[in-house]
Amino acid sequence: MFNPLLLPELREMLAEHDAEQLRAFCEELHPARTAEFMAGLSAADAWDVLKYADLPIRVEIFGFFDEAKQREIIETSDRREIGELIAALPPDDRVDLLKEVEPKVVAELLPLIPVVERRDILRLRAYPESTAGALMTTEFAKLGEQVPVREALEELGLQAENLEMIYYLYVVDDADHLRGVVSTRQLVSSLGKPDVTMGDLMERDVVTVDVLDDQEIIAEKVARYDLLAIPVVDDEHHLLGIITHDDVIDIVREEATEDVQRLAAVDPLDTSYSRTHWFTLARKRGTWLVILFLSSIFTALALKAYKRDLSEIAWLVLFIPLIISTGGNSGSQSATLVIRALTVGDVRTSDWLPIVLRELLIGLCLGVFLGLFGYGAVFLVQRSANPLQAFIVPATIVLVVLWGTLAGTLLPLLFHRLGLDPALMSNPFVASLCDIAGIIIYMNVAAVILGLC
Amino acid sequence: MFNPLLLPELREMLAEHDAEQLRAFCEELHPARTAEFMAGLSAADAWDVLKYADLPIRVEIFGFFDEAKQREIIETSDRREIGELIAALPPDDRVDLLKEVEPKVVAELLPLIPVVERRDILRLRAYPESTAGALMTTEFAKLGEQVPVREALEELGLQAENLEMIYYLYVVDDADHLRGVVSTRQLVSSLGKPDVTMGDLMERDVVTVDVLDDQEIIAEKVARYDLLAIPVVDDEHHLLGIITHDDVIDIVREEATEDVQRLAAVDPLDTSYSRTHWFTLARKRGTWLVILFLSSIFTALALKAYKRDLSEIAWLVLFIPLIISTGGNSGSQSATLVIRALTVGDVRTSDWLPIVLRELLIGLCLGVFLGLFGYGAVFLVQRSANPLQAFIVPATIVLVVLWGTLAGTLLPLLFHRLGLDPALMSNPFVASLCDIAGIIIYMNVAAVILGLC
Repeated sequence: MFNPLLLPELREMLAEHDAEQLRAFCEELHPARTAEFMAGLSAADAWDVLKYADLPIRVEIFGFFDEAKQREIIETSDRREIGELIAALPPDDRVDLLKEVEPKVVAELLPLIPVVERRDILRLRAYPESTAGALMTTEFAKLGEQVPVREALEELGLQAENLEMIYYLYVVDDADHLRGVVSTRQLVSSLGKPDVTMGDLMERDVVTVDVLDDQEIIAEKVARYDLLAIPVVDDEHHLLGIITHDDVIDIVREEATEDVQRLAAVDPLDTSYSRTHWFTLARKRGTWLVILFLSSIFTALALKAYKRDLSEIAWLVLFIPLIISTGGNSGSQSATLVIRALTVGDVRTSDWLPIVLRELLIGLCLGVFLGLFGYGAVFLVQRSANPLQAFIVPATIVLVVLWGTLAGTLLPLLFHRLGLDPALMSNPFVASLCDIAGIIIYMNVAAVILGLC
Repeated sequence: MFNPLLLPELREMLAEHDAEQLRAFCEELHPARTAEFMAGLSAADAWDVLKYADLPIRVEIFGFFDEAKQREIIETSDRREIGELIAALPPDDRVDLLKEVEPKVVAELLPLIPVVERRDILRLRAYPESTAGALMTTEFAKLGEQVPVREALEELGLQAENLEMIYYLYVVDDADHLRGVVSTRQLVSSLGKPDVTMGDLMERDVVTVDVLDDQEIIAEKVARYDLLAIPVVDDEHHLLGIITHDDVIDIVREEATEDVQRLAAVDPLDTSYSRTHWFTLARKRGTWLVILFLSSIFTALALKAYKRDLSEIAWLVLFIPLIISTGGNSGSQSATLVIRALTVGDVRTSDWLPIVLRELLIGLCLGVFLGLFGYGAVFLVQRSANPLQAFIVPATIVLVVLWGTLAGTLLPLLFHRLGLDPALMSNPFVASLCDIAGIIIYMNVAAVILGLC
């Protein structure tokens, strides 16, 4: 992404302390792009470049550095300069960042941060991770009901540089209770009527989240109501902060990643895949692999119980992998579809009966279809198979696919109903259940059909 | 979600044609909530209620109805009234909606829509699905470089009601080439300097997408640069439209759903799970199940090739499901982690070597760990097993887990490198490859160890 051609130039400017050029470099491009161009610089060099920019631009570019570089700059640069930077960072971002910094450094930095910002940091830090409190920013436009449009717009103009979100103005009473919201759109439309007050304009039916709500709820509400930001309130409807659209996009991406990882039986990673230590990865995968492994032992025990039946027709054994995979695959499909539909709010557990019936219909259809292939497959693998005995395979396939769709549908619904994350019902887990059930079904079908012979 | 208590009241108001109350009902709440309250009404009743609201509010509430209700209203209500509604809908939404409506109805409606909107519909309809062109809206604030702040703000005030996004003003030259962007934030901050022009204020380094870019690219850019909207341009940098933050959140959710479905070997659904016809679901699942089924036949053939070896130690057969599941599970984990990391831009294909090496290290670690359990499992299932022969199981597990991580890592990287969607390399597909490889490894390890006995 970044342009390595620019790096020697940048280093030269730094060596020559070319203030004018470095300042121009920081101001010219979108801050995210400037940060990308600096990706090849060491943390110390990057910070040296930033020091030539004005504080607001320095803060913006810094915000687009990756986390490792941000942390290194904070931990190794002059404490007083960093204190100034931190005081100017968006409140939600600086709290997230300080959580990653060495506690010793944080302790040294805190006294250097102005008292208002310091209190804010300590307060936000107290909220549990992934809750609205931990995600919200405390810098937003807050006005009284009596304020006229003209004044509101002037006030907004003065504060615009310091606020993360200036497109919603929140109306509060003297005790900071949220009363309504006015959009900058409404404000701008009312320019012709400067004496109209915030109270006249405001929308009273405000969609809010509770300060302890989980990020999944926040993302769902912002998406449903097409909001740019959502206000965060406590039990008494005091306005505590807001969560902005860019954080919501990050939440949606993060939640999707977690769901995908759970579906594949990996305990969700705390940070990105590339930055997770190999041992942490091994641990988060190993836990589930062991659970799945132990359940596989039951498959071995089930097979042993039927050993005598298996020896009656030697070729039966050849189709064990095919039968259990087919069950597992159809089970994974159902589980994934149901889990995702539950996550995005497309289906509810109260709809379980029509969902199960539809899945069974689909399962029957798929089972019969695959069964036809299965009957052919027996003769492909074992030419000499008895045509009636060969019927064991398709009959088992129909039942195994039905079982897979049923288990894949019911288990996530049950987990959701019990208040657990349905994604815990991972695909490999459903597949494991299908393995054991597959063996039992196979052997019993074989016994019935051999009885007929 | 909706309040069934309110429905009888609403129906009563409708029966009494209580215009004042119905109008108040439409205006009082957030339009999304009003739409939820009306979820229990038939399409005809819902439309009757909406007719009491002013057009802008009618359009907003209508926008929050679910797609089925929107379609039914359009198809069954008075064509002239619907033409008026469609002309007022956001340009991107109305095109999406008309794609779902019966072509006969669309043909009747088009002549009733004013010529400007009609041309806009025909033009947007021509872009392929999921491209920037199909997602963009054509209603946005567009100004010349010479326009002073004062005038821009006034102009914005006049148009605010008609624009979907008023927080970015795009600066264009006479030929509609995009020259820069000014945020409403900058505009409001410059209220004190009314003679400053758009050209003075504008940011020249604008992040854009091409009109034919896929939605994945759009979502990635908006997330990376924290934008409220992204402009859409053609090859010659003409400004064609913009894509707004709310559509981007929908894109991110949609893409995540598609990825999850692909991972479970389901062809992505065009609409939500609950609204997809059972037969479509069966078809989208069946295609993949058949492919996986056919590859399972190779497992059966592989087993047959080793039939003689299998009969030498009878208990070997009992561990076949355990061995192939363990390989499949570790393969799925690797594939999922790598695919997701590629999707969110966390790793690149050029980093393949360190990724593969790390995965192999993890695989070795997990394999040895599970192997220890495996050695114990042999004696649990088969007390009489020969301690040296029992070693076949753990040795196979180590190799199978290594193979699983290797295949799960390399295949998505290879697919990505070839320009294909890595999520096509679905988990069941990786698991299938592990099944066949598992059998081959198992039998060869057995041959080596039996040779040692």
